[in-house]
Parts: sequence; C-alpha cells; structure tokens
Amino acid sequence: MSFLSIIDILGTFAFAVSGAFSAMEKKLDPFGVIILSFVTAIGGGTLRDLLIGDTPVRWLRSGTTTLVIIAAAIATMFFGKFLKRFSITLFLFDAFGLGLFTLIGVQKGLQLEFSPGICVALGTITGSFGGVIRDVLLNNVPLVFRKEIYASASILGGILYLLLLKVDMFSPFASIISIMFIVALRIIVVRYKLALPDMYRRE
Amino acid sequence: MSFLSIIDILGTFAFAVSGAFSAMEKKLDPFGVIILSFVTAIGGGTLRDLLIGDTPVRWLRSGTTTLVIIAAAIATMFFGKFLKRFSITLFLFDAFGLGLFTLIGVQKGLQLEFSPGICVALGTITGSFGGVIRDVLLNNVPLVFRKEIYASASILGGILYLLLLKVDMFSPFASIISIMFIVALRIIVVRYKLALPDMYRRE
Amino acid sequence: MSFLSIIDILGTFAFAVSGAFSAMEKKLDPFGVIILSFVTAIGGGTLRDLLIGDTPVRWLRSGTTTLVIIAAAIATMFFGKFLKRFSITLFLFDAFGLGLFTLIGVQKGLQLEFSPGICVALGTITGSFGGVIRDVLLNNVPLVFRKEIYASASILGGILYLLLLKVDMFSPFASIISIMFIVALRIIVVRYKLALPDMYRRE
Repeated sequence: MSFLSIIDILGTFAFAVSGAFSAMEKKLDPFGVIILSFVTAIGGGTLRDLLIGDTPVRWLRSGTTTLVIIAAAIATMFFGKFLKRFSITLFLFDAFGLGLFTLIGVQKGLQLEFSPGICVALGTITGSFGGVIRDVLLNNVPLVFRKEIYASASILGGILYLLLLKVDMFSPFASIISIMFIVALRIIVVRYKLALPDMYRRE
Repeated sequence: MSFLSIIDILGTFAFAVSGAFSAMEKKLDPFGVIILSFVTAIGGGTLRDLLIGDTPVRWLRSGTTTLVIIAAAIATMFFGKFLKRFSITLFLFDAFGLGLFTLIGVQKGLQLEFSPGICVALGTITGSFGGVIRDVLLNNVPLVFRKEIYASASILGGILYLLLLKVDMFSPFASIISIMFIVALRIIVVRYKLALPDMYRRE
Repeated sequence: MSFLSIIDILGTFAFAVSGAFSAMEKKLDPFGVIILSFVTAIGGGTLRDLLIGDTPVRWLRSGTTTLVIIAAAIATMFFGKFLKRFSITLFLFDAFGLGLFTLIGVQKGLQLEFSPGICVALGTITGSFGGVIRDVLLNNVPLVFRKEIYASASILGGILYLLLLKVDMFSPFASIISIMFIVALRIIVVRYKLALPDMYRRE
C-alpha cells in the first residue's frame, strides 16, 4: 500500500467523522448521518476529478473508500454518544481532513503536470469542498467563509509542500510536514481567534 | 420505444411535476416554475452521468426530455390552480419519480458492469438528487434528510431489483415490482409516520 | 486575441466584480472575497464544460482567467470602499456578466453543432449559474428565482443572436447587439419593476 493511499484513507476517515458529527449535531437519523459522512468525505475529491475530467470518479471504482466511510460513520454514532460536546472533536477531525486532502489534491495536480498555482488550487478544492457541501446541506454558514483562516491554511500548506519539494526533500516527509503545518495553523488560529485584517472598519 | 425509455420519460414527467408544484408553493413566476421543473427532472441523472463520465449528458442530446419537462410544467401550472392543496399531489409525484429513476440508475450501473453496491448507489443518486437540488434551491430542508425513510426506500428498492434479477425474473417485470415497492414504501412510511429508530433519546 | 476571448475576459471581470461586491456586502474577509469572485466568475462556464464533457475545464488550463479574477477582486476591495452603496454597481456588473457569458455559451453550443434550443440553454447556463452559486453560498435568494425577468433576458438575448446570424449578420456585430439587448432589458426591467404576469392572483 503506497504512502499516498494511506494519506487518502486517513483523510477519508477524518472527513467522514466530521460529517457524522455535524449530522448528529442536527439530530439526523442514522441513515442521514451515513449520507452526510459520505458526501463530506468524497465531496472535495469528486469535484476535483470532475474538473480535471478523471471519470468515472474514484469512489465508484474503489470499494475501500465506501467501506471506510461507513465504518467511520457507524463508529462515530456509537462512540459519539459518550462525548459531552461534539464541537472540539469535530473541529480536530475537520482540520486533519483539510490537511490530508490538501496534499492529495496538490499531488494529483503534480502528476498531471499542471502549473504550481493550479496544483495549489486543486489542493484547496480537494481539502475544503467536502466541508462546504456538508455545511450547505445542513444550513450552516460554510467554515470556509467564516472569519477564521481556513482556505488560507490549505493554500499556505500547499505552497509549503511545493517549496519543500523544490529543496529536494523526500516527498512523504514533505507531505507530513505540510499536513502538520495545516493542522497546527488551524488549531492556533481558532485557539487565539486570529483572523485576516478587517477591511470594513471605518473610523 | 424500449421499456427503459418509457420508464425514463415517466420519471422525468413525475419529477418535473413535483418541481413545478414546489415552485408554485413558493409563488415563483412561470419562468421560475419551468426552471425548477427542469432542474428537478434532470438533476439526478445529470449528477450520475457526470460521475461516471458519460458526457455530453443525456438531455443535451435528446430533445424529448426537454419537451416532456416543459409540457409537465405548463400542465401543472394550468391544472394545479384547481387543486386546494399541493402537498399530497406533490408527495405522490415525488414518490413515483423516486421509484422510476432509482431503477434507471441501477440499470445504468448494470450496463457499465459496476459492482452491485455501486449499482444501488447510482440508483439512489439518480432517484434522490433531483429532489435535493429542488429543495436546496427553494430553501427547504431536503426530503432526504428528514426523519421519514426516503433514501432508504430507494436503496431497498434497488436491492430488491438486483435480487429479482438474480432469481431470473424477466427484467421489465422485476422493474415494475421494484418501482411499486418503492412507491408503496414511501406511502406507508408517510401515512403511518414511520421513521428509523431515534438514537438521540437518552433517559 | 480573438473577439470571443475579449468577450470572455470582460465577462469574467464583470462577474468577478459582482462576486466581490456581494461578498463585501456580507463583510467576508479578503480571502473570502477572492474565493467568491472566483466562484461567481467561473461557475457558469464550469457547469457548461462539465455538462458537455469538455475537461479539464478551461480555467485549469489558462492562467489568464485566474489573473483577471484576482485583479478584479483586489480592485473591487480597493475602490469599492469609496462607494456609498454597492447595490447599483453590483447590479450593473451582474447585468453585463449575464449578457457577455450568455453569448459565450451560445457560441460554444454552435461550435459543437448542438440544436438551437440547446445552444440557447447553454447560453443561459453559462450566463446565470455563476450568479446562482454566488447567491446560494451567501444565503441570498438566487436572482434567477426572483420576480424580475432574469433568465428570460438571457434566453431572449440568445434567441436574438441566433436570429441575427440567420439573416447573415457578421457574428461580432450580432454579439454586441445581443449583449446590449440583454443589459438594456435587465436595466429596464429593474428600473420599471417589470415582471412576468402573476398567476397566483385569485379574485
């Protein structure tokens, strides 16, 4: 099993859990929870594959993805009941999903020899679109549009990865550093309530 | 004209009517009603075709679909005025659309020799996604996420169809039974307010 | 540089500005403004290209589009601050975007030798879908569903263009007339609060 497919499975798992928690917060029935896990976990990769024309999309061809998602959703429903508050766990799984899938997207772009800017864009789409669908379907304001630095974290992580490859770092190593960077940045940003400068203030 | 294309046209008609009723409930203008009929009727099949890479999508190649939709929308605007309450009629057309399109999706999967699980998933996507778009655009909570058994009905119907084929039932016959099963299940579920067990109750 | 690509760049610019204004109205941070400009400007063309199977979609292959969008977003953030009210400017840019992109879509359909009805539909999709995404993401009711004549303007403009070609008018000339027609129609409709006849009134 390749390094890349491990990252992919971890990302799928992380986003499936985040989708399940969001659905449980809104008290959907078990079936709704599974659908939301599914949509959150495959949303970003599916949009990316549609845009680059790589069809049939991946999860139609691989049973693993579907199994991981269903397992994640069921585990979340089972163990999630014991958690007092979903929000912190949900946030962490979302942050890991963002980091892992950003890297998957950037690497897909590199394989297809797109320009660096487009590779980073594909990373951001892969990393953030599943969460956008999750939030739109549940009538939440998408995380990506809230004040906190979200898509920016994905973009910076993508750029970091390309820079590390540029200085000839071994790719799996560069991946892990960039993923950790994105997760850490998300935690710091939310912990200290950082945001981009407000351009609407007028004295 | 093949059996499959008859089912397809009936499904298109049923969802177009359901889209038109939803739009009229929100008092959209005639043009908005036609757009919503269109989006509801082609939504599921379009997503399915995009996912499996079968493009240009079908309704771009066939004038029949467009004609059926416009006729359905106009008929609904004309006759719908005489109905006191839209909700029951809307519910029935939605149930038939779900049943008919689920079968179309499963059969498309079989043609492309996907695994049984993916065939059922394609059926559910084809059957339910048009309604999801309809509800999202009109700011309703998608039926698929409400407590009532909805996507589950589509999944069970898809499985039933595959089982009937397995025991060598003649395909059009198996189709009709499965479609009737889905419609009947939806009616029973809504009539008797059945739902999946609630996992949020805590004594 | 061809006549068509000039129209395309102008349309991209107009919709990017309209997306940026909408985002600023909702006080998104600078990054959110850029994302919304992007989604609004590429939404219609992307859906069209996905539907006809022309992938990888255009903006993945052309850096120009991305540059124009980012420039438009930054310019809007900079100069937009000096405007008292966004709504009129936003409306005008949206109207120009609708006109310009409708023509791009119709011409794409003609190139692929689709039937006239489908060419007009591709024009309407290209012209209006970016705005639909913009409005859905910001939780506004999509313009296309409001009472004012919007998609109808795009359809009429597309038909006008096909008619002008039919009488052998030089294509760039026919384009400019049709674009102006759509923009003018939008202005008149909004200025004089015109709408399609109301079918819900019952005495």
